[in-house]
Amino acid sequence: MSYNAPVKDMLFVLKELAGIDAVATLPGFEDAGFDTAQAVLDECAKLSGEVIAPLNVEGDRAPSSWRDGEVTATPGFPEAFRQYVEGGWQGLQHPSEFGGQALPKLIATPCIEMLNAANLSFALCPLLTDGAIEALLTAGSDALKSRYVPKLISGEWTGTMNLTEPQAGSDLALVRSRAEPQGDGTYKVFGTKIFITWGEHDMAENIVHLVLARTPNAPEGVKGISLFVVPKFLVNDDGSLGARNDVHCVSIEHKLGIKASPTAVLQYGDNGGAIGYLVGEENRGLEYMFIMMNAARFGVGMQGVGVAERAYQKAVAYAKERVQSRPVDGSLKQSATIIHHPDVRRMLGSMRAMTEGARALAYVAAAHSDTAHYHADADVRARHLAIYEFLVPIVKGWSTEMVNEVASLGVQVHGGMGFIEETGAAQYYRDARILAIYEGTTAIQANDLVGRKTVRDGGAVAKALLAEIAQTAEALGAAGGAAAESMRVQLEKGARSFANVVDYVLANVKRDPNAVFAGSVPYLKLAGIVLCGWQMARAMLVSQRELANDPEFHGAKIAIAQFYAEHILAQAGGLETSIVAAKGDASVLALSEVQF
Amino acid sequence: MSYNAPVKDMLFVLKELAGIDAVATLPGFEDAGFDTAQAVLDECAKLSGEVIAPLNVEGDRAPSSWRDGEVTATPGFPEAFRQYVEGGWQGLQHPSEFGGQALPKLIATPCIEMLNAANLSFALCPLLTDGAIEALLTAGSDALKSRYVPKLISGEWTGTMNLTEPQAGSDLALVRSRAEPQGDGTYKVFGTKIFITWGEHDMAENIVHLVLARTPNAPEGVKGISLFVVPKFLVNDDGSLGARNDVHCVSIEHKLGIKASPTAVLQYGDNGGAIGYLVGEENRGLEYMFIMMNAARFGVGMQGVGVAERAYQKAVAYAKERVQSRPVDGSLKQSATIIHHPDVRRMLGSMRAMTEGARALAYVAAAHSDTAHYHADADVRARHLAIYEFLVPIVKGWSTEMVNEVASLGVQVHGGMGFIEETGAAQYYRDARILAIYEGTTAIQANDLVGRKTVRDGGAVAKALLAEIAQTAEALGAAGGAAAESMRVQLEKGARSFANVVDYVLANVKRDPNAVFAGSVPYLKLAGIVLCGWQMARAMLVSQRELANDPEFHGAKIAIAQFYAEHILAQAGGLETSIVAAKGDASVLALSEVQF
Repeated sequence: MSYNAPVKDMLFVLKELAGIDAVATLPGFEDAGFDTAQAVLDECAKLSGEVIAPLNVEGDRAPSSWRDGEVTATPGFPEAFRQYVEGGWQGLQHPSEFGGQALPKLIATPCIEMLNAANLSFALCPLLTDGAIEALLTAGSDALKSRYVPKLISGEWTGTMNLTEPQAGSDLALVRSRAEPQGDGTYKVFGTKIFITWGEHDMAENIVHLVLARTPNAPEGVKGISLFVVPKFLVNDDGSLGARNDVHCVSIEHKLGIKASPTAVLQYGDNGGAIGYLVGEENRGLEYMFIMMNAARFGVGMQGVGVAERAYQKAVAYAKERVQSRPVDGSLKQSATIIHHPDVRRMLGSMRAMTEGARALAYVAAAHSDTAHYHADADVRARHLAIYEFLVPIVKGWSTEMVNEVASLGVQVHGGMGFIEETGAAQYYRDARILAIYEGTTAIQANDLVGRKTVRDGGAVAKALLAEIAQTAEALGAAGGAAAESMRVQLEKGARSFANVVDYVLANVKRDPNAVFAGSVPYLKLAGIVLCGWQMARAMLVSQRELANDPEFHGAKIAIAQFYAEHILAQAGGLETSIVAAKGDASVLALSEVQF
Repeated sequence: MSYNAPVKDMLFVLKELAGIDAVATLPGFEDAGFDTAQAVLDECAKLSGEVIAPLNVEGDRAPSSWRDGEVTATPGFPEAFRQYVEGGWQGLQHPSEFGGQALPKLIATPCIEMLNAANLSFALCPLLTDGAIEALLTAGSDALKSRYVPKLISGEWTGTMNLTEPQAGSDLALVRSRAEPQGDGTYKVFGTKIFITWGEHDMAENIVHLVLARTPNAPEGVKGISLFVVPKFLVNDDGSLGARNDVHCVSIEHKLGIKASPTAVLQYGDNGGAIGYLVGEENRGLEYMFIMMNAARFGVGMQGVGVAERAYQKAVAYAKERVQSRPVDGSLKQSATIIHHPDVRRMLGSMRAMTEGARALAYVAAAHSDTAHYHADADVRARHLAIYEFLVPIVKGWSTEMVNEVASLGVQVHGGMGFIEETGAAQYYRDARILAIYEGTTAIQANDLVGRKTVRDGGAVAKALLAEIAQTAEALGAAGGAAAESMRVQLEKGARSFANVVDYVLANVKRDPNAVFAGSVPYLKLAGIVLCGWQMARAMLVSQRELANDPEFHGAKIAIAQFYAEHILAQAGGLETSIVAAKGDASVLALSEVQF
């Protein structure tokens, strides 16, 4: 099988690091404990490995195709999607009153990882549908909810997010699409939207577009943007499908990767106007879109973890099979499989350490999200929500930056074969490259981390996390042994860099915003490295305790955590220097435009 | 124009860092001073920018194609190659007795950079021809030289290197191709060679394959490999072309990048045996191949610099044109071009700093090569040869690792457009990915750096370079100013890490080779970062002195050098930790094969 979901690793994180037992004490999640998680993950692993993963290469070789406004998905995709829908997977984390299974995000998250590892292009379709569901549940009227949400949750219909226009990418203030009220409560929508993932396809009978547009006389900028539902087919009062709406796919993009997922240019209103329905209140569209986007950003972080895991599995398989050169230590007189070579070990170790660290942090964030939404006590909810929101840009930004490195190492392990498309390692490298871009580039995540997540609360969440890290470091000191000691040293150094940078950001952001924001991406990477390292440290403590119960499994966890400390955490100091040294608009900010 | 060769930057390095004036004092190079360099570079910039660069996108969209054993190059390539040949560019650095121009490597090197920046696929063909020329000049008989070298130097014929077989990549001990002596001084060659760049094409009338094969009763392993010339068409005594030889292209690869350069599978001897001619002595093939390979490795390093420069130019152009979001410092009330945003500056600064550093180190290495080959004093030659050989794996390894990062940043600057193939940024990302793999992966370069270049001489060259770095640091201290001080601090820190690692390698390589070689790639990166940083420091000193003469140019040099110090040199400490911490087979080497 080309992808074996690492269910044992995932359950380890769920139980030992993210606290599934505590999540199962939240109201409504009484039946969603470890056993449920295990059953769901096993089932999802089967679907991912047997049905969806084999289509991944197919999608790259026979991308979705456009003809006369219609998009045909890669052969096999519609049938696999049907199985996904029939299994009820789209409803995993959505409310039971609309037909969902109402499971915790903590259980849904490993499933999302598996689907994306199996097939990034495929999994994008449900990911966008999740976003549409979130937005409608949060801001939609009861009428909109009852008309659209059950069909989205069942998977019969799919959803999209329509933000980007040719002139408006990261900068939504520049959105020009417009919506004219028709007096009957509906609107007519006009405009061009680009980069619309699964914006047109033949896997579902209807597509529910969520579209940002301006009403007449709306204020300039982001405060004048409203959110509309624009279905591909209008929906009759009895729920049956009516007329084709005036939204058409005029082309799809030719991309570096994720070729099976059609990236559509959608034209609204060329034939009189596309009928749209306002979601929530006028001019609050951006706020609602951020709800979708936060869910989607977390999901993109999981895409990074998923592709990293898949690239790792492929590289390991190759390294165990390919025979080349004698071991440097002279232990064999003939050529050995390349997994015997120290640099191959280092590459595989880097891939695994970064993947495991990012997975652990994301699952921990998912548990915070569950507590933030379902705990009985409002103060507890607020505290966990603040942590979750701090972690979202890091899960998104760091997981997607790290997967570029991991997928590149995957190619490198394959040597010359890695550059040949038939091998498959290159597809992960190409596919992964979009992740640090869409749903907000790493710089956009980093701006969010600096502005809304660090400066706004005076660094309160960051400092609370640092206090927890200090406790873990103390436990490492008490645990003893070379691995724990090495981890303690690097974790403390990393935490000190993190703390110094938080102080620097707080002290300088008003006085010298250019310098602080020039360091925002290094800050995000530093935070990601240290927070993932903290999870690796916690895993190490658990595995030291449990070692005798499963020496092979826990021994590997300890060794990979130590590797993380010495190879990944060790980068923290350099990042601190590049952030802090940027003060006073030094070096690159000093160049004028013509000097570039 | 899609590529403007940075001639002013190149000449700055030639003159101020690599010492073209000193090279022009070497016997035979009296006419090859700064003025000659300027004239040659200007001419090459024209050819590269106007003729060769425009074909780069073409080559990606319409790759070379195979049919019935024949390969047709991308439309436009043969005509451009004809212009390249007519301009005498292939002979730039080759001896005048065979028709070359006998210019220093220092002048040829920027030209090689330009050609590769313009079109990596195109430039690979001359690069391989250069290797074939080197091997024949070094080891070939007079008969072989006079028959093949003039046609190769003129560019009428092209050359290839045939090392790899399906089971023998990095490990040439596994080569199985065989050569049977025919009693008349010729051999019949049999076997399959893969990954043969420009192994078959229609741009030249003949192709001269240099092929590794075993003679009957040759010893096992690398000591039983001989080198043969196998021309595509046999050459008559009068120099005219004779019969088609029994070497045939059975397929070409479908690759991630450099799609215009055909990567051939060559079948030797399916119809009775391909006629081959022994180069030098039997069983010394690997030694001769290393001559080609060292030249080719340096050339691949220049490919890294070239693609990095091109990716930088494209990213700058986009950043100056794309309007998106207001500046974070509130200095504008409307959206600005993205070059105003601090993180875009940081990305462009990283791209430029790494590119300039790698360029400077490579040109400095080229000057050492010239002195090593042409200085009148044998001791001086030997000293410079040792430095050049130390630098080759670093130029190859570091330039090609850095270009992956630079090309990735280039995609990132373009945001979503970077992922769309029509934009062109993605091509550099794909093309560049082979560079850290072919002509020896980064791990192979790193093994060379550790074994042959550091351990064998007891670290003598490394320590000599460190002594020079110390002098530069001292000069920075004397120069004064914030930029020089920041550079001094980071350069001294980096040099200390470099020195510590050299000591660690020397002390532990016998006792614990696995641990040392697990740190070999980080060591190579550390050496690359520090040695390039040293060149940036030297550039800073020159530009501080010359600032008043050209404030825009030298001001940029100072700022980029400072940026290099704070963002790139700052990574040295983390690399040191990951190398030194690996001692005692810790962490990843502790995992058994089944634990991966």
